[in-house]
Amino acid sequence: MSLVSTVSRRDVEWTATDILFAPPPVRRGEFEFDLALRHAGMRRVRLRYETVGDPRLPAVFVAGGISAHRHLAANAADPVRGWWEAQVGAGRAIDPARHHVLAIDWLGADGVLDVPIDPGDQADAIAALLDRLDVAHLHAFAGASYGAMVGLQLAARHPARVDRLVAISGVHRAHPYSSAWRALQRRVVQLGALQCDGVDGLVLARQVALLGYRTPEEFEERFGAARVVDGRVHVPAEDYLDHAGQAYAARTPITAFLRLSESIDLQDVAPSSVTAPVTLVAVEQDRLVPVADAYALAQGLRGETRLRVLRSRYGHDAFLKEPEAIAAILREAIDAEQPA
Amino acid sequence: MSLVSTVSRRDVEWTATDILFAPPPVRRGEFEFDLALRHAGMRRVRLRYETVGDPRLPAVFVAGGISAHRHLAANAADPVRGWWEAQVGAGRAIDPARHHVLAIDWLGADGVLDVPIDPGDQADAIAALLDRLDVAHLHAFAGASYGAMVGLQLAARHPARVDRLVAISGVHRAHPYSSAWRALQRRVVQLGALQCDGVDGLVLARQVALLGYRTPEEFEERFGAARVVDGRVHVPAEDYLDHAGQAYAARTPITAFLRLSESIDLQDVAPSSVTAPVTLVAVEQDRLVPVADAYALAQGLRGETRLRVLRSRYGHDAFLKEPEAIAAILREAIDAEQPA
Repeated sequence: MSLVSTVSRRDVEWTATDILFAPPPVRRGEFEFDLALRHAGMRRVRLRYETVGDPRLPAVFVAGGISAHRHLAANAADPVRGWWEAQVGAGRAIDPARHHVLAIDWLGADGVLDVPIDPGDQADAIAALLDRLDVAHLHAFAGASYGAMVGLQLAARHPARVDRLVAISGVHRAHPYSSAWRALQRRVVQLGALQCDGVDGLVLARQVALLGYRTPEEFEERFGAARVVDGRVHVPAEDYLDHAGQAYAARTPITAFLRLSESIDLQDVAPSSVTAPVTLVAVEQDRLVPVADAYALAQGLRGETRLRVLRSRYGHDAFLKEPEAIAAILREAIDAEQPA
Repeated sequence: MSLVSTVSRRDVEWTATDILFAPPPVRRGEFEFDLALRHAGMRRVRLRYETVGDPRLPAVFVAGGISAHRHLAANAADPVRGWWEAQVGAGRAIDPARHHVLAIDWLGADGVLDVPIDPGDQADAIAALLDRLDVAHLHAFAGASYGAMVGLQLAARHPARVDRLVAISGVHRAHPYSSAWRALQRRVVQLGALQCDGVDGLVLARQVALLGYRTPEEFEERFGAARVVDGRVHVPAEDYLDHAGQAYAARTPITAFLRLSESIDLQDVAPSSVTAPVTLVAVEQDRLVPVADAYALAQGLRGETRLRVLRSRYGHDAFLKEPEAIAAILREAIDAEQPA
């Protein structure tokens, strides 16, 4: 792909638009360092990152749910689809031609770090990455779900590093009901761990989690009535849940699920400790993060605050399933004060 | 206790009020009969019932959730507390001094009948009980949760037997999202069944079910933040869930849970097949039975229909946890046209 731009360079005068055809530089790496974890003391951790875009462009850090990772979108170095193709890429709200886009694999995602991991630890790890990459401050942090929680932590713990924050479907705390839901998921894993490989437990735990990510409204549209098959009642959604649970378990270490699930429950940020401008996005149908918690957060934040409440039949997963609405919010929040 | 009334009878002239002091007669029994099950063909079934009150009084059948049973309230024959003390008893909305009160243990509750059980099968069994007890018709059927589903079935399948129906937090169908939730609970049981006695799976399945019966609003009030204990994240609600799950598993056969959970998912009544007057009660916060389904049912019913929508932080369990509101509705619905 880089040959195209080399040839072009000789023949035409460049305009900003033409630059879209040159693949933005990709940097993927990992490094080890000592990190003082909030609940587990000093630990040697390994952080994996991927950046796309010219490092001289405004830096935008992107973070998703506990199952998200550093590969946001297909790029010149890795054509595999990423987890946020709708928002990251040429012409998207977060565009490596205009932004230096950064992302990590969460601490704990490799299943090696088997201790309680606070969302604040993730923020500290991101600060270490910014040091390493010589990124003085982020033009924006765009986080969804767990990523929004970590963004709030970064803004609270390292205020000089975050110019503005977009926090989608994640707030300053874990709701006690949602925590109970996750605790039961972890128990499902533990129940399954008594079996041979424990994968069945992880599949089932993920299925229970999925019900929290989606809504009755969506299931109403997608799935019909139960029926009796071979003397057992079979529910149509089971087929979907089977597929989704198995796909997740195939790519996720059991320890990673347990420790990152726990990490959500440790979220605890004082809203008043966040001074950066924040765009909050809440979804009325979200069954894990009640809109009331987003209101409480919005009232407590110290900087300029915008709260956008969406209606979506995808509930908590709206950040993945409502690309147009999310893109519009990201563009407005990220580009607002950006130098031309 | 019956001696008290014998002595009294000789000494005073009775008034309606005085009759409250004589214990209403209790009849508890069981019988076997052949029943054509909708999904499993002709089966020999055993039905256990308890009735309280003079059989000449207007008959009121009472039915609750899948974990409810025939013992509604302490009575002269059995001083153990029942599952609906707040609504059944002297001076309560359903009063054995004024009503002939009937209840059953659900088909399948003993864990012996290990086949798919339709809610319509329960209605047919109730009709058989009415035959056996020589009850021509019920003055009222008061059902909550699964009991409301069965009440609708009885009104549809045996219209001559039901003069009026109160259906609380249960409608004509199972919602696909709630069905998925229950299907995952059954899988938790199956995962646990690979262990020695399988009880851990039942405990955990019940805990997952409980989250559907309650609400974030209640958990918000009751439970605080997670904390790290011995290197694991512990959520305060876990202690409550442990207690509740273990208490349930101690009294419930695994097969009973599986077959009655399935049975909810088989609910399928055409609203237009119900011609009796119906009082529907829906709860805004119910996470299993969306209010929208109660509206749809109300629109389809053929008889006089009243829909009462409650707000309750107890969600689906409001029928157990909001005694005053439920009592007022029961009194109005059951006593409305009752002869003095």
